[in-house]
Amino acid sequence: MQQVAPVLSDELDIVIPTIRNLDFLEQWRAFFQPYHLIVVQDGDPSRKVSKKKFIYTIDDDCFVASTPTGDKIDALQQHIRNLLTPSTPFFFNTLYDPYAQGCDFVRGYPFSLREGVPTAVSHGLWLNIPDYDAPTQLVKPAERNTCYVDAVMTIPKGSLFPMCGMNLAFNRTLIGPAMYFGLMGDGQPLGRYDDMWAGWCVKVICDHLSLGVKTGLPYIWHSKASNPFVNLKKEYKGIFWQEDIIPFFQQVSFSSDSLTVEELYLELAFKVKEGLGHIDPYFSKLADGMAG
Amino acid sequence: MQQVAPVLSDELDIVIPTIRNLDFLEQWRAFFQPYHLIVVQDGDPSRKVSKKKFIYTIDDDCFVASTPTGDKIDALQQHIRNLLTPSTPFFFNTLYDPYAQGCDFVRGYPFSLREGVPTAVSHGLWLNIPDYDAPTQLVKPAERNTCYVDAVMTIPKGSLFPMCGMNLAFNRTLIGPAMYFGLMGDGQPLGRYDDMWAGWCVKVICDHLSLGVKTGLPYIWHSKASNPFVNLKKEYKGIFWQEDIIPFFQQVSFSSDSLTVEELYLELAFKVKEGLGHIDPYFSKLADGMAG
Repeated sequence: MQQVAPVLSDELDIVIPTIRNLDFLEQWRAFFQPYHLIVVQDGDPSRKVSKKKFIYTIDDDCFVASTPTGDKIDALQQHIRNLLTPSTPFFFNTLYDPYAQGCDFVRGYPFSLREGVPTAVSHGLWLNIPDYDAPTQLVKPAERNTCYVDAVMTIPKGSLFPMCGMNLAFNRTLIGPAMYFGLMGDGQPLGRYDDMWAGWCVKVICDHLSLGVKTGLPYIWHSKASNPFVNLKKEYKGIFWQEDIIPFFQQVSFSSDSLTVEELYLELAFKVKEGLGHIDPYFSKLADGMAG
Repeated sequence: MQQVAPVLSDELDIVIPTIRNLDFLEQWRAFFQPYHLIVVQDGDPSRKVSKKKFIYTIDDDCFVASTPTGDKIDALQQHIRNLLTPSTPFFFNTLYDPYAQGCDFVRGYPFSLREGVPTAVSHGLWLNIPDYDAPTQLVKPAERNTCYVDAVMTIPKGSLFPMCGMNLAFNRTLIGPAMYFGLMGDGQPLGRYDDMWAGWCVKVICDHLSLGVKTGLPYIWHSKASNPFVNLKKEYKGIFWQEDIIPFFQQVSFSSDSLTVEELYLELAFKVKEGLGHIDPYFSKLADGMAG
């Protein structure tokens, strides 16, 4: 067996928010062994305190998936590849990731855009239990994701997406300050929107700074569907409020005074208070949390 | 074998621009047999004169591809599925086509956007010989596309893409007047950009009218790479001019007076003359062709 030094083992932390136990790590041992793990109890405000350049966060009900030909998927190495290769948010490449092996930019792709931009986020997907909202869970309790889509792509500039925190890697030095999952735990009205909220904030700031967000590979095997009745109670305000939140994020723009992610995030917090406060007082508190 | 009536056989024409011969049709016989074929010699100005609602156009070096499990791909039926199901240009669905079997919108996808919008274009892909420009062909003569990506997706609003005419279907009643491949044959300076140009025009008009453009499945088997030296001669101006053309299309906007595709396309022709005429007198002629 060829010995290859583990990639980025000094520059990456694996963060595991857990509400169950860590048995799932047994499957990941071979892949995670060279990396430092940070285990945080879900809801613990001190979560995600890593100071490393790269973070990979994975939920405790996510197991090692296999490709259609039966190979075990080393999710972390695929995330690292995604983060270390550029993104292409300004023009769509129809053969997907132009930096993947055996792939390139197609005819008609502007040469001036082929260098790409730095990648801030790598959003991985899930086989087996898809990440559905409570109403869809209720309507389709038996639906399983069996479709392995062998692609990584950049989410185009100007397009928002639902960022799921189950299997997510990011470059903390590029976008860390915007990756805030706070004020959405027990007792807060916007349940199950912590990762979504972070995703919308991250995406508008990445778009503004010309940073890339990728989605697609790697897949993990998502074993347990959460309880749809419990989820419905957590989600119902978010599902409703989201109809105002999305247009807010679709039209948000930043002043030329904000240069860093920190500054942009503070400006965004201010705009949240101003632009979403009318929905519910909660958004003022959320804005304070963002600014805090 | 179950007998199913062929879908849309009265409402769809297959248009084949040919520069070689029609031997390739032998492979497609079982799939194309219920449909009407229009064969046009490449460069013939009367091409694409169908009056049907849907058009499928396929090049004469495109053969039937197979899935990774060895099933022959009925490309036309996949295009028809793509055209008859809605598109989702306003928000990215991370599990790709939410209308595909076994798939849906993921958590965090706004419910108000789940009806989607009508689909105007279905852009299919190519296994074996990828659609590369001449420089990439020269640099990677042996590269073959072997990656079967099992997905259909909507190209988000505001994002341009390189539309290849090799394996392309569209709804003529929705977008037909903008699907103009003209003034780019022998003796014209913008060679190998006929489909690209049409794609940029189509995409900005679809974005304006809230119509969808999909890309991904179905794959065809592209058998022959065209001569990269000949292509380089045809393309070199386009590769250069494109650096101005893309920013033009990225910022183009339409007046509220233009309501139909015809009106929008005429307005676009006027803006082409105004906005790209400084590059070369050719763009004035192209604009006249668009308006003609």
